[in-house]
Amino acid sequence: MAVNYAEKPLKIFSLNGNRPLAEKIAAVFGTKLGDCAIKQFSDGEISISIEESVRGVHVYLIQATNQPVNDYYMELLIMIDALKRASAKTINVVLPYYAYARQDRTAKPHEPITAKLIANMLQEAGATRVLTLDLHTVQVQGFFDIPVDNLFTMPLFAKYYRELGMVGDDYVVVSPKNSGVQRARSLGEYLNTTLAIVDQEESDPNGGYVIGDVAGKTCIMVDDILNTGNTLVKAARFLKDAGAKEVYACASHALLSPPAKDLIEKSDIVSLCVTDSCLTTPDRQPDNMVYITCAELMGAAVKVIHENKPMSPLFKLEEKCFK
Amino acid sequence: MAVNYAEKPLKIFSLNGNRPLAEKIAAVFGTKLGDCAIKQFSDGEISISIEESVRGVHVYLIQATNQPVNDYYMELLIMIDALKRASAKTINVVLPYYAYARQDRTAKPHEPITAKLIANMLQEAGATRVLTLDLHTVQVQGFFDIPVDNLFTMPLFAKYYRELGMVGDDYVVVSPKNSGVQRARSLGEYLNTTLAIVDQEESDPNGGYVIGDVAGKTCIMVDDILNTGNTLVKAARFLKDAGAKEVYACASHALLSPPAKDLIEKSDIVSLCVTDSCLTTPDRQPDNMVYITCAELMGAAVKVIHENKPMSPLFKLEEKCFK
Amino acid sequence: MAVNYAEKPLKIFSLNGNRPLAEKIAAVFGTKLGDCAIKQFSDGEISISIEESVRGVHVYLIQATNQPVNDYYMELLIMIDALKRASAKTINVVLPYYAYARQDRTAKPHEPITAKLIANMLQEAGATRVLTLDLHTVQVQGFFDIPVDNLFTMPLFAKYYRELGMVGDDYVVVSPKNSGVQRARSLGEYLNTTLAIVDQEESDPNGGYVIGDVAGKTCIMVDDILNTGNTLVKAARFLKDAGAKEVYACASHALLSPPAKDLIEKSDIVSLCVTDSCLTTPDRQPDNMVYITCAELMGAAVKVIHENKPMSPLFKLEEKCFK
Amino acid sequence: MAVNYAEKPLKIFSLNGNRPLAEKIAAVFGTKLGDCAIKQFSDGEISISIEESVRGVHVYLIQATNQPVNDYYMELLIMIDALKRASAKTINVVLPYYAYARQDRTAKPHEPITAKLIANMLQEAGATRVLTLDLHTVQVQGFFDIPVDNLFTMPLFAKYYRELGMVGDDYVVVSPKNSGVQRARSLGEYLNTTLAIVDQEESDPNGGYVIGDVAGKTCIMVDDILNTGNTLVKAARFLKDAGAKEVYACASHALLSPPAKDLIEKSDIVSLCVTDSCLTTPDRQPDNMVYITCAELMGAAVKVIHENKPMSPLFKLEEKCFK
Amino acid sequence: MAVNYAEKPLKIFSLNGNRPLAEKIAAVFGTKLGDCAIKQFSDGEISISIEESVRGVHVYLIQATNQPVNDYYMELLIMIDALKRASAKTINVVLPYYAYARQDRTAKPHEPITAKLIANMLQEAGATRVLTLDLHTVQVQGFFDIPVDNLFTMPLFAKYYRELGMVGDDYVVVSPKNSGVQRARSLGEYLNTTLAIVDQEESDPNGGYVIGDVAGKTCIMVDDILNTGNTLVKAARFLKDAGAKEVYACASHALLSPPAKDLIEKSDIVSLCVTDSCLTTPDRQPDNMVYITCAELMGAAVKVIHENKPMSPLFKLEEKCFK
Amino acid sequence: MAVNYAEKPLKIFSLNGNRPLAEKIAAVFGTKLGDCAIKQFSDGEISISIEESVRGVHVYLIQATNQPVNDYYMELLIMIDALKRASAKTINVVLPYYAYARQDRTAKPHEPITAKLIANMLQEAGATRVLTLDLHTVQVQGFFDIPVDNLFTMPLFAKYYRELGMVGDDYVVVSPKNSGVQRARSLGEYLNTTLAIVDQEESDPNGGYVIGDVAGKTCIMVDDILNTGNTLVKAARFLKDAGAKEVYACASHALLSPPAKDLIEKSDIVSLCVTDSCLTTPDRQPDNMVYITCAELMGAAVKVIHENKPMSPLFKLEEKCFK
Repeated sequence: MAVNYAEKPLKIFSLNGNRPLAEKIAAVFGTKLGDCAIKQFSDGEISISIEESVRGVHVYLIQATNQPVNDYYMELLIMIDALKRASAKTINVVLPYYAYARQDRTAKPHEPITAKLIANMLQEAGATRVLTLDLHTVQVQGFFDIPVDNLFTMPLFAKYYRELGMVGDDYVVVSPKNSGVQRARSLGEYLNTTLAIVDQEESDPNGGYVIGDVAGKTCIMVDDILNTGNTLVKAARFLKDAGAKEVYACASHALLSPPAKDLIEKSDIVSLCVTDSCLTTPDRQPDNMVYITCAELMGAAVKVIHENKPMSPLFKLEEKCFK
Repeated sequence: MAVNYAEKPLKIFSLNGNRPLAEKIAAVFGTKLGDCAIKQFSDGEISISIEESVRGVHVYLIQATNQPVNDYYMELLIMIDALKRASAKTINVVLPYYAYARQDRTAKPHEPITAKLIANMLQEAGATRVLTLDLHTVQVQGFFDIPVDNLFTMPLFAKYYRELGMVGDDYVVVSPKNSGVQRARSLGEYLNTTLAIVDQEESDPNGGYVIGDVAGKTCIMVDDILNTGNTLVKAARFLKDAGAKEVYACASHALLSPPAKDLIEKSDIVSLCVTDSCLTTPDRQPDNMVYITCAELMGAAVKVIHENKPMSPLFKLEEKCFK
Repeated sequence: MAVNYAEKPLKIFSLNGNRPLAEKIAAVFGTKLGDCAIKQFSDGEISISIEESVRGVHVYLIQATNQPVNDYYMELLIMIDALKRASAKTINVVLPYYAYARQDRTAKPHEPITAKLIANMLQEAGATRVLTLDLHTVQVQGFFDIPVDNLFTMPLFAKYYRELGMVGDDYVVVSPKNSGVQRARSLGEYLNTTLAIVDQEESDPNGGYVIGDVAGKTCIMVDDILNTGNTLVKAARFLKDAGAKEVYACASHALLSPPAKDLIEKSDIVSLCVTDSCLTTPDRQPDNMVYITCAELMGAAVKVIHENKPMSPLFKLEEKCFK
Repeated sequence: MAVNYAEKPLKIFSLNGNRPLAEKIAAVFGTKLGDCAIKQFSDGEISISIEESVRGVHVYLIQATNQPVNDYYMELLIMIDALKRASAKTINVVLPYYAYARQDRTAKPHEPITAKLIANMLQEAGATRVLTLDLHTVQVQGFFDIPVDNLFTMPLFAKYYRELGMVGDDYVVVSPKNSGVQRARSLGEYLNTTLAIVDQEESDPNGGYVIGDVAGKTCIMVDDILNTGNTLVKAARFLKDAGAKEVYACASHALLSPPAKDLIEKSDIVSLCVTDSCLTTPDRQPDNMVYITCAELMGAAVKVIHENKPMSPLFKLEEKCFK
Repeated sequence: MAVNYAEKPLKIFSLNGNRPLAEKIAAVFGTKLGDCAIKQFSDGEISISIEESVRGVHVYLIQATNQPVNDYYMELLIMIDALKRASAKTINVVLPYYAYARQDRTAKPHEPITAKLIANMLQEAGATRVLTLDLHTVQVQGFFDIPVDNLFTMPLFAKYYRELGMVGDDYVVVSPKNSGVQRARSLGEYLNTTLAIVDQEESDPNGGYVIGDVAGKTCIMVDDILNTGNTLVKAARFLKDAGAKEVYACASHALLSPPAKDLIEKSDIVSLCVTDSCLTTPDRQPDNMVYITCAELMGAAVKVIHENKPMSPLFKLEEKCFK
Repeated sequence: MAVNYAEKPLKIFSLNGNRPLAEKIAAVFGTKLGDCAIKQFSDGEISISIEESVRGVHVYLIQATNQPVNDYYMELLIMIDALKRASAKTINVVLPYYAYARQDRTAKPHEPITAKLIANMLQEAGATRVLTLDLHTVQVQGFFDIPVDNLFTMPLFAKYYRELGMVGDDYVVVSPKNSGVQRARSLGEYLNTTLAIVDQEESDPNGGYVIGDVAGKTCIMVDDILNTGNTLVKAARFLKDAGAKEVYACASHALLSPPAKDLIEKSDIVSLCVTDSCLTTPDRQPDNMVYITCAELMGAAVKVIHENKPMSPLFKLEEKCFK
């Protein structure tokens, strides 16, 4: 059935987290970003004023919670409150990067579960739906009682490496730590490779070893969040020590906190591929890093949501089995 | 009845907002601050770990939400989540300064009510009670469905000015803007003076005039939040123009955002009195500013809450009628 | 975009609070009031039966909570419950007068915040939106987590006094008590006048004085709720004593509890202007009182809500700046 | 285990519904009623101020919601809000009579379920437990998600009639309408009698007939709510027509709305027995009516709740089987 | 107004409870059942996967909670969760039989109110509306805060018996126990008969007697839930002992737990009429039992809900007054 | 501080899931299980009656949700409802095995997150705390907003294998699938071994391979849930094929659904160690399986909770570093 946009008006707004990405997503949808004024007073308080009517409108609100993470979450919560009071019909929060997602359990006694706190805050403020990209753990979906659509970056990376011809027995997909095996396995299926894991000791910078066979092979490490790059850089060293021919890496969310640029440029990593889910200044970006965009994927998802079509085709952008 | 602390164990924790004040409050209570580790990762995420058991304990959690306000609110929400999951019996949030309290209504269409959002977030995270000091508007109490005790600073300022002999017909208490008349009136009753109001135009730096009689009198301006000091400084000029003899000022919460120090030192204000509810670095503090402490008042309130005694005596520290 | 009423069916219902106003609001909208039977049994219980289907309908439910206030609130809550169970699509509560709004804070320890209780009851019963007129304090908006549109009466009074030519330097707008300064200031801007305030002592019928300059000027007092009229009448006397030439007054909500008629007729008030937000019997209405209607304003607001158009034009019925 | 009242402080408060009963209940407990000021302003708004500290106290709040029912429910909700904000530890609502209990289902389409609305309001306001007496339908317990203890009046009436020797084959317990059969059956078991039912037609004052055998027997009718007395009086006539020797009646809650006194005095009812759960003025009380008190029963229940003892003994005040 | 199904898409799903009935309901609506896979793992866990998109769709979910009742409730809750997360627009739960409805009060101290628990679970899982058939007690409607439409079976049975000519003075409608009098009365009105009641003692298989006159008449017993049939069979014996000419019976929900078939076939009941609200295997169905279908009634109700038309005509399928 | 049990009364109840374990837990605490009657009617409905008073009591309610899982969850929810209505002070749910924990994310579009549904149901029913043992994924803790203490089985298995001397370089701890690496790593630290992973293909019974080095070593596989044993048995074959010397296995929760006994007895697994968290009949238990008990651990946890002592010592029953 055709969508009658007069009957289902929508507006896309972006906060300050990653406005370039938001503009690309709006472009996919063939529209411009809505108008809202975000100020920060001299005492640090954020003030938001929506500059156009949202009464009865389906709002898609895009915010990447990269640095400064707490300011950006507060922007998001305040904007949701404003939309709710201004009578938006639905408030669909689009989070290309969900900060605090790693605090998803009480690792030690007396710790918070901040990823759940964030989920509760978003719901309590008035969000009616969430769209995310490659959550650190998929269980975070269950922290919500509103619909959450979690898109995957693996098809994007699969497409990238396939176009480079990096498939088959000469390659091995590697999880640079013992907890991201699912993600590595997913990429491995796309690239038709075996798996290996680098088991690192957190407390010892030299502690760790490679589980699985990498000797003579080209390794493709895969991780979700790239912060200082330390995990990838250290894993690359273990892989080289274990006889790897070359080491590549990809990561979904490129936070690139210092000294990431320096570490990665000087590392054993030949080339690093990341998405544009997070916004950073160019001076933080390593020379051996390549951006691919998640904007088409996220824009398509917004379109699918708004037109009440199934999301599942977006999970199959690339076929897992191929010749 | 005597309180059996073995049966009603309590612990006082402080976050990073205003630790010196928290230590003074704990001292009033004759105890030390509880042990908790607050870290900020390189990507800006806050991590909190409570370093002692709080199972079954009544926790008083002190946080002044001065700058950086969003980080400090996030600290607070995360700590509440941690305390809830660690089985604290009650979580009593002590907010010497409640940031965002001025955003308590939709001043223009399409605006948020951020003070309500904050109240909702605190309750949703797990706070079971709130203790505040001189809320910007008392209606904010009604934003909560948990008990809120709001202490007043006027008795503290009344005591200060009385000790200086600043009472009676030679003085006039002035509200520096048209919206703080209640607060001025309260101090006026303590000091046995009449009132005046400076009606300032927000849009015009030279717009405004004095309502009421100040000629030949010493003015004591009173406000709740002192941010850049602009409101007080501008009002002082109008008062002098209207024939005031001298101008003093007091304010409950001294944020002192630049250029407050400079503005106030160069102003017509002889001396400014503030409480220590907010923490700032010494280089932001004007030379003509005096601190009085709210620690005894807040400590007494915590004691009263913990021992289930009535709060009302704390509202009458100073008698309104005197000879 | 044109509204297709077949797709967005609406019905307007009125309870017993102020049916004449409700009929005028429905007329603005070009429709009749929906049919519902409200009975009170001999034991005082209220019984409501909606006499037409509301399945999938956007309902606007009008109730002024003037006397008997508790019966009228109970009518309102019961009707909301009935509409919810009868599958109304949205339940938009229209409150021309919001009783209990003055109990918006704990003025003394151990007091309720009844205005918040009312907000909680309305939401819990099933209201999905609220439309009010000149709330006693605008912060009451924040007592709700559903959208609240609060209309202002000041443009109506501004229009009324402008048509009488009562503008400029010969006039002064006066708040008859120290807490309604904002409202006075708003009218003063419309009429291009200065302000004055009457600071009354609650405990002493002769206590009080005028802040600001009224000598030789015509005063226009402004207040929101007119109950017995005592505040206005007493303030008028202080104004005359301070040399005012003549005293006029306006008030948004005319409850007119005895002995209002008597007090006002014998007072120094030349003429009193009120809206028809509250319903009273003619024998309570002073001879020197004039009604202006809020029906067009409220009807326009209902229309705007139903058609998802912006509310802001209604806040600018009269321009603040004029020649 | 002995109760340490210092550790479990309690206070009993009464609102205006039925203060004589509340005083009797407090007396059972060996204490006085707490001090609270309830005022009604000239505009009909209720104002409540608790005149003593309730911080950390277990409060039992007694309110019979007889006439004026809406004012008394509003009193109750406002007082609960005040207690919650004043930090009462628990708020135990004691409702000797639960008005609106008959509106417990949608008898016709588009009707409210007001008994559920009341339950929701009490819980939302902050009640933590409810104690009732002979609810119109026991299913109303399930309208709550907090504990509800519902006491029965049948043991009280059983004791009354047994002491008069009214037991066995010469008697028949009668439900005066087709919906109270359970209540009649319970009394019948206590008095060792058979049952009969009067099936009345609502629409026809002369419509109805007796189901079961009453000829030559003394009938004891039993009902829960006695409003105008019309149901009992009409049933008595049918019973006499069916050959009943004499007709007695009892009812739990005596609202006695006019013309109850007149109707009952002139009826075929020899003697009517009611409890003091509701308060009425003496001029409404028929001469052939006897009061028995429910105060000991309710006081015992409050004691049991406060001391955490089992409630079940109170349901067995009278043994069902006897010789 | 015509319903535009493109704009209001709907899908009907059935779980395993009573798929034949669901298919008939869908047929009434002119559609097929939606596709969903329900599996039970070897460890007993249920797994559900919706096999088509439900984004933005109005879903009607049919589940009869006959045996195995706990598995079927869990299926229902899991499916509601799946629909909610898959962004169904509304989730309308259709319960031809509401198991646990008899546990609607705490019959003894320390008992649950399981019927309320079920209501809470359904709402918490995400149901937005409920459609039921002949609830055990109508008060269960009030256990919900979402709209509940409860259809009646009495018009179906009335039609059935009228077509057999079983009306008027030679017949008597009988409640087989003392608690279902309302239901009997309703059928009696349709069939123009008097009433009788069998008062059975639960503890004594031979205890009980008939209230009312049945001698020489044909009895039609009516009950809601037929489990083992013991209540009906025992009542039939008392009726015959009291001189009844013949005994018929009808029941809304035919669970037919063993030894129902055997008991009923050997009983004094000539013929038993039940609806197809519950599904049982043929080997449980007595030879003297007749099925009438509730599918048209329920299908019509689904249609009415989806098209926002009034439900009331469905309550009047048969006129109560006739010639 | 000493615990005064008179002041903090506690009772431990068990439902039907795993009564032998519950009795052992109660024994650790030095008490007996509370008395409650659980019946299942012929129609499959569960009926629960608590046979002793729980007013003001801290209740610990033990239920293992092994087969029949839906019946046991319904028992649990009904019992929580009964405890809540019977005024238990706290309701602490002890779940040695949390069924449905594997459904913790939407693996495919349109799937439920049943583990979250369960969490919501438990909280909505009235649980105030949860104690679990080795949750399938630790993120499930975050599905709750009440405190959850999750105990670990790894120290128990570590102790078991250490006592057998199975530590050091001759051994390798193996995760039998690609998703349980954390659990394997934890045991590996205790036993001072390296890790290996068996990456199995779900769709292909012969698909899979070993990642890491196992040749000539004794493997100890570790998993959380043992249902049919297929995963362990298949992994054992791959390990043997990869040159493993011997294969052992341990699993936290032994569901042992057929054909587990047969599969395991005929497999390459020398010996299998499980805890008694789940109850099965002896005819399901393989001959080469050893039970160790979790009763002391869980009993100690209940004690720690009740006495408000820290839980952390229970996570360190065995030291990770040893000589």
